[in-house]
Amino acid sequence: MATVPLISDDAASAEVLAVFDDIRAVRGTDYVNNFWRALANDPALLAATWERLKEVMGPGELDPLVKEMLYIAVSVANGCEYCIHSHTAAAKAKGMSAKQHGEMLSVIGMAMQTNGLVTAMQVPVDEVFEV
Amino acid sequence: MATVPLISDDAASAEVLAVFDDIRAVRGTDYVNNFWRALANDPALLAATWERLKEVMGPGELDPLVKEMLYIAVSVANGCEYCIHSHTAAAKAKGMSAKQHGEMLSVIGMAMQTNGLVTAMQVPVDEVFEV
Amino acid sequence: MATVPLISDDAASAEVLAVFDDIRAVRGTDYVNNFWRALANDPALLAATWERLKEVMGPGELDPLVKEMLYIAVSVANGCEYCIHSHTAAAKAKGMSAKQHGEMLSVIGMAMQTNGLVTAMQVPVDEVFEV
Amino acid sequence: MATVPLISDDAASAEVLAVFDDIRAVRGTDYVNNFWRALANDPALLAATWERLKEVMGPGELDPLVKEMLYIAVSVANGCEYCIHSHTAAAKAKGMSAKQHGEMLSVIGMAMQTNGLVTAMQVPVDEVFEV
Amino acid sequence: MATVPLISDDAASAEVLAVFDDIRAVRGTDYVNNFWRALANDPALLAATWERLKEVMGPGELDPLVKEMLYIAVSVANGCEYCIHSHTAAAKAKGMSAKQHGEMLSVIGMAMQTNGLVTAMQVPVDEVFEV
Amino acid sequence: MATVPLISDDAASAEVLAVFDDIRAVRGTDYVNNFWRALANDPALLAATWERLKEVMGPGELDPLVKEMLYIAVSVANGCEYCIHSHTAAAKAKGMSAKQHGEMLSVIGMAMQTNGLVTAMQVPVDEVFEV
Repeated sequence: MATVPLISDDAASAEVLAVFDDIRAVRGTDYVNNFWRALANDPALLAATWERLKEVMGPGELDPLVKEMLYIAVSVANGCEYCIHSHTAAAKAKGMSAKQHGEMLSVIGMAMQTNGLVTAMQVPVDEVFEV
Repeated sequence: MATVPLISDDAASAEVLAVFDDIRAVRGTDYVNNFWRALANDPALLAATWERLKEVMGPGELDPLVKEMLYIAVSVANGCEYCIHSHTAAAKAKGMSAKQHGEMLSVIGMAMQTNGLVTAMQVPVDEVFEV
Repeated sequence: MATVPLISDDAASAEVLAVFDDIRAVRGTDYVNNFWRALANDPALLAATWERLKEVMGPGELDPLVKEMLYIAVSVANGCEYCIHSHTAAAKAKGMSAKQHGEMLSVIGMAMQTNGLVTAMQVPVDEVFEV
Repeated sequence: MATVPLISDDAASAEVLAVFDDIRAVRGTDYVNNFWRALANDPALLAATWERLKEVMGPGELDPLVKEMLYIAVSVANGCEYCIHSHTAAAKAKGMSAKQHGEMLSVIGMAMQTNGLVTAMQVPVDEVFEV
Repeated sequence: MATVPLISDDAASAEVLAVFDDIRAVRGTDYVNNFWRALANDPALLAATWERLKEVMGPGELDPLVKEMLYIAVSVANGCEYCIHSHTAAAKAKGMSAKQHGEMLSVIGMAMQTNGLVTAMQVPVDEVFEV
Repeated sequence: MATVPLISDDAASAEVLAVFDDIRAVRGTDYVNNFWRALANDPALLAATWERLKEVMGPGELDPLVKEMLYIAVSVANGCEYCIHSHTAAAKAKGMSAKQHGEMLSVIGMAMQTNGLVTAMQVPVDEVFEV
């Protein structure tokens, strides 16, 4: 259970409904997922988060699938169950193959491992990396 | 300072030197960075880590630059200073532009933020994500 | 399921019951929550944790609600589901309004985001902060 | 060293200078700290981050000092050295006494400890917390 | 639910079955737990992970029970629910008593607490530790 | 630099000096390390932390060296530089050999890796682990 109620369309204010409608339009689906319905308890936080997410995850320098994979990588290291589920679903919807999924997992696992080894040995940064 | 000595070529055993030489050959540089010189205190751990890293970061389903960015994303969430420096340097060497760097940072920042919001509200996973 | 049994009043030793009774007296409720029933498998750890918590969360320099919000902030960054639920409930019981809850979430989200950006860029600490 | 150059006023574009000037005006100081000078490599990220921070940390439901302490709590759990230094300095500037500092540390330490104990024992959430 | 299907024996390739059989032989049980069935979606990742785990957790310099407790300690700090359950079960199977369990919990809780205090105060490393 | 002053013996109150003296007596050394000198800004926090640490790390069910290694494992996953240095020094003082150090690192690295893989795949806990 969430620590806040999930706001249904019926319970939403006009301000919240406007954000829900923009989410539907941008994503081309009628479904508004629980994250936004939880954020809707604070309409200003909902609007600011959606506006920023739309900007950051929209067209830019990096491939949309790459952005989803970066999102997953951060979410795994932070242990965010919901985020891992939602962004893995999004990555699959954007074409992530089972082989790409496996390779992404291999990189994440390797990074976790060497993060631990480096930190445990407190390895000093090489000067060549700092240019 | 590291919690273990950094092993120079002169101090290295034949087993360790063989790994150092493979690192040099695969990367096309004479420079062996501190991480490997720290790991060299345990030759079996050095060899296993290098063999696996070579495999995981080698040619595959994902672009080499994408792999470096995934590595950075995990390292940031884990706060591994050395890893952030070494893999940001590697990403730049593999062609990451300043604009791509900025966009990657934007995605990492966004993921950190929504990880925190989702976790604080304990949002339940939507059934649609679990297929 | 927990990795240890939850100790009921019937199964509790006199030493454990004395702690349970103090929890009830200090909090003004008959309910002893699962955390203490899990800790009760090690009576010394139970007693030490409760004595310290009572001291730290008791009257002092900071408002009791502020202490609960600090507890939530740490628990979110650590991803402790139980702690988020129990301390959000405690914060509400101590008067946290929905608006305060939303603003706390906004601060936590902002901190998570800039933690990530700062760490990814390895920003050096300004001298002015170190006085 | 940072993984990006720190942008001086002389090297800043008009877009970046406008943000720097707003930081100076809002904070009533001529000093622009390194975080903003690092973010300035991506003017859009700089502007978005500053606009949001100004909103979140500005007047609202919670005391400005409480917001700084929440920021510190998150930054400690994430291990963000720069953030701990900058927000501890900000908290002191907003009146945090040595006694309040000590009590905040006590709460953070207690939360870290019980986060670990709860997670290690995988304590199930009490139904009473989920209302 | 997992983000990948769990591979049953019937659905497993010969390559995957060979790893499952080795897990059964080494552990002396017919049961193959979900972690390996999830990894089996990427046979190369499955094989590499199992080979390394078998090596690392096999006979060596440290007692097998100590290795399990180290595994738990890392998993608690990372908040990995599955890992805590599986390695606590393994530790109990290797003889961890309730008293040892309690003492391990006490050490983990203490370490979490002082990690937070040290980080919040940014205590400089004593020269005597760096020899 | 620390966010609080380090309290020298000359600047210490009688209450603080009594704790410093107990640290010296228990450890059999005249040296009081920076952690305690930082905590000394809050005498009550200093005393409570020392009393608990003395209890937890003192004689009990687990070998003193094992306790130090558990402390290191937690500190690595939390990225606490000071704690890694101080407890690695303590482990060496208690007899940790280079080979044991290497094996501990291998276990920590393996745990970090599988923590990441398990979390990324959201593997459901096997019923057999929950008894």
